[in-house]
Amino acid sequence: MSSSEPWTEVIRHEAARRIVRFLRYHWALNHALALMHWDLETYMPREGVKDRSIAIEELSAEVHRIERSDELARLVEEAEKHLDEMNDYERGLVRVVARRVRIARSIPEDLVRRKARVTSEATVVWAKAKKESNFALFKPYLEQIVEIERAIAEKLGYEEHPYDALLDLYEEGLRTRDVERMFSVLVPETKRILEKIMSDEFYPQKHPLEEAWYEKAKAQKLVETILDHLEWPWSRGRFDESPHPFTIDMGVYDVRITVRYEGYDIKRVVYSTMHEYGHALYELQQDPRLDQTPLAGGASLGVHESQSRFWENIIGRSPWFTPTLKKMLDETVGLTKDVDVVDLYRYVNTVRPSLIRVDADEVTYNLHIYLRFDIEKKLIEESLSVDEVPETWNQYMEKLLGVKPRNDAEGVLQDIHWSHGSIGYFPTYTLGNVVAAMIWKTMGGPGSELITSLRLRDIREWLREKIHVWGKTYPPKELVSRVTGRELDPTALVEYLEWKYTRLPDKIEEVLSK
Amino acid sequence: MSSSEPWTEVIRHEAARRIVRFLRYHWALNHALALMHWDLETYMPREGVKDRSIAIEELSAEVHRIERSDELARLVEEAEKHLDEMNDYERGLVRVVARRVRIARSIPEDLVRRKARVTSEATVVWAKAKKESNFALFKPYLEQIVEIERAIAEKLGYEEHPYDALLDLYEEGLRTRDVERMFSVLVPETKRILEKIMSDEFYPQKHPLEEAWYEKAKAQKLVETILDHLEWPWSRGRFDESPHPFTIDMGVYDVRITVRYEGYDIKRVVYSTMHEYGHALYELQQDPRLDQTPLAGGASLGVHESQSRFWENIIGRSPWFTPTLKKMLDETVGLTKDVDVVDLYRYVNTVRPSLIRVDADEVTYNLHIYLRFDIEKKLIEESLSVDEVPETWNQYMEKLLGVKPRNDAEGVLQDIHWSHGSIGYFPTYTLGNVVAAMIWKTMGGPGSELITSLRLRDIREWLREKIHVWGKTYPPKELVSRVTGRELDPTALVEYLEWKYTRLPDKIEEVLSK
Repeated sequence: MSSSEPWTEVIRHEAARRIVRFLRYHWALNHALALMHWDLETYMPREGVKDRSIAIEELSAEVHRIERSDELARLVEEAEKHLDEMNDYERGLVRVVARRVRIARSIPEDLVRRKARVTSEATVVWAKAKKESNFALFKPYLEQIVEIERAIAEKLGYEEHPYDALLDLYEEGLRTRDVERMFSVLVPETKRILEKIMSDEFYPQKHPLEEAWYEKAKAQKLVETILDHLEWPWSRGRFDESPHPFTIDMGVYDVRITVRYEGYDIKRVVYSTMHEYGHALYELQQDPRLDQTPLAGGASLGVHESQSRFWENIIGRSPWFTPTLKKMLDETVGLTKDVDVVDLYRYVNTVRPSLIRVDADEVTYNLHIYLRFDIEKKLIEESLSVDEVPETWNQYMEKLLGVKPRNDAEGVLQDIHWSHGSIGYFPTYTLGNVVAAMIWKTMGGPGSELITSLRLRDIREWLREKIHVWGKTYPPKELVSRVTGRELDPTALVEYLEWKYTRLPDKIEEVLSK
Repeated sequence: MSSSEPWTEVIRHEAARRIVRFLRYHWALNHALALMHWDLETYMPREGVKDRSIAIEELSAEVHRIERSDELARLVEEAEKHLDEMNDYERGLVRVVARRVRIARSIPEDLVRRKARVTSEATVVWAKAKKESNFALFKPYLEQIVEIERAIAEKLGYEEHPYDALLDLYEEGLRTRDVERMFSVLVPETKRILEKIMSDEFYPQKHPLEEAWYEKAKAQKLVETILDHLEWPWSRGRFDESPHPFTIDMGVYDVRITVRYEGYDIKRVVYSTMHEYGHALYELQQDPRLDQTPLAGGASLGVHESQSRFWENIIGRSPWFTPTLKKMLDETVGLTKDVDVVDLYRYVNTVRPSLIRVDADEVTYNLHIYLRFDIEKKLIEESLSVDEVPETWNQYMEKLLGVKPRNDAEGVLQDIHWSHGSIGYFPTYTLGNVVAAMIWKTMGGPGSELITSLRLRDIREWLREKIHVWGKTYPPKELVSRVTGRELDPTALVEYLEWKYTRLPDKIEEVLSK
């Protein structure tokens, strides 16, 4: 029955092993929940949601019961006495589980249930409010959510700022001042670069291919071709269709991505495939000995996002990838046969200030995040009221991007996150962009031979041995500094953007003619 | 969070409600397990099985823990004191749960674990033994399995025969003497009918279409067309591909069937679709108020099989369905355009004594089951040793069907069931055939206007209100006698076969010309 347990090769200390064994059923429940979510978004018949949502609720409640259990707390407490006898994996394990236990036990059950109840309704109300472009409908829910999140922050505790406690839920150890420091560089520098781009004409604001229609079957073939080119391991992974692209894993042996086919603007398919591939690769290249343990999975949301952004933007939108991309597009979708590589490069790198975050290019993206971060922080510290959010949003948009939403739907109501109670989540997107640029810089920046020669297999190996293989062994900040030799450094992203958007155009013909 | 609970409309007694509430998590685990099995057979990447099998093991163990729990036993005991205050649903609920508790608590955990361990290995060894056609490899495992099943029978207890205890695991209340009585009629009568068929030439032993190749995409379209014609509710169901066709449900709102495409002999696709449709319809047409309760799902394996066989054979292989089938085949697969309806009818009703059960037609099928039943019964009562099984098998085949396996692979090793430890399962197949014929007779037999006019919607409604709607409310034997007014009656199947295979041919032109 019981198969071998490869994790025992790295987790040797008995106090750590007891934790893994105790959490085996917890692991199995999470495996089941991952599949239930995947199926919900891909193949489940529409009415199946009636039972599925209840089954998910039941299993999730059990997951939380286990995390709150006295027995687990005791096992962690015992293990913490032996940290100096442990290896990095074992210490990482104890740290990761201790953190989960602390979070699970800090937030009282009635607050958890209240959040579940409120956000479950809020998600429905948000969809209606967005459809009708009426913030007033959503307002009472956002007020409750902010109040609940504040209460959660108080229960979790913090040293400097209540928003720190919420940030930490999504990104272990990230603080408000880290995010503020990031944006204090990024906001003015991005605006400066954006102005240069707008006054030049190399990067277009609009490209005719954005409105070209494609057939779904051809786009599916394209996705398959891209994944084949990236040596996707089909025995351990697959891709399917869903309304919103995502990556999910059930361990290192089963990693799945999804793609959405809108029917026009084929680059969206290309880059959401590359994006999800980046997430998936992180899971696929983990040390298989961490499988079935709490160390499995990426270090944090931010580090995960650095991997997706690295493949999407730094590789996928680089000129060195463009000829490969052209070949793949020509052979599958076939709209690009008369488009030369320079023009194709420009198509996949259009830059324009826009209202909607998910449509934003790599230059303007972080400005969208900054406004969300600043509003969230102020809501949590009570220096802004929910009433003031739509107007504040619109003012920021104008100030940062020079565009102004005509209504709530294209403004404050555009994202689902707040209705889920996810406050403190958005900054991990920008963190991902920053870490991706730090990796780029570590690889050699503009002159990185790995990238300019498109040595994909070596790039994968670089990422594998430096990042992927470790799972959650090291806290995200420590992992980043181990890999890059630096603390979180937004100037890497500025350097990257400045190089790509102001210097690369001058020699693009030369780069692409090779 | 919590949605409405439609089951409270039918389960009103507090003692019964307590059981449903207690089993809510148990229900959710089974929901997850059903999905995990479905995915394992359909979309899971090959290597995913490493983690999946362990996750399934963990969740199954928890399901059994709940069924063995003292608290559930107490709730059942309490409810049993109030049976006279209860409605049929509530009494059915208490009966169903009491039976599960009795089974779960009768079989000691070490025996459960031993069976799991032995059958897990046995399944692998069986596959190898079958491949090499070498019973000697499998023999020690079958010996252990027989010994384990005997021990299980002793633990479960029985009044007349140890095999009764095993039969009851698959078919509540079915006894060895019921099965013996069935076969004492079926075996001689089937042989008699088979001889008549063989001496006539209307039903062919072989048809050229059996060797005609088809394209998978066209066969998929055919399945869709058949399901559309049967008004399949796509919002609550789907079909996918798997190595072995099956039906699985995650409640009344999510029912899935699978199809296998072998590339030749298109009738296999047609009839496995009709077969699984019959199973699926049973789940789809349940009273939705039984959803999420232990009353959900078919009354038993035998009654479930009666539904699949009814749609596969009694409807699907009837001459009244043939013109519809021809139209669907012509429009999708297109191999049948030059085949007239009489010939098509003969193609889908070939009859030939054969070695392999799963390829058997509706005439010879039960003879395959009889030999398995008789061998199982004798193994359990120790009047036959495992050593003697291959020779006994071959002798039976010759005696019953006039064919003799050339080797173990096409003889005793052909079925996976014994390697799974499923002893007592096979008779439910014949029970299904018998009950399907009893339903046919109750509908009016040869002159049933529902069938001869192919009033599919009315047939569905007949089955719904008489059978499907009840779930497990009544024990299978009681349900059958409520529906048909009779005890288990093998003569209905004899009548059906005799009519179809010896009298219908004389007027087939007339029937098909309408």
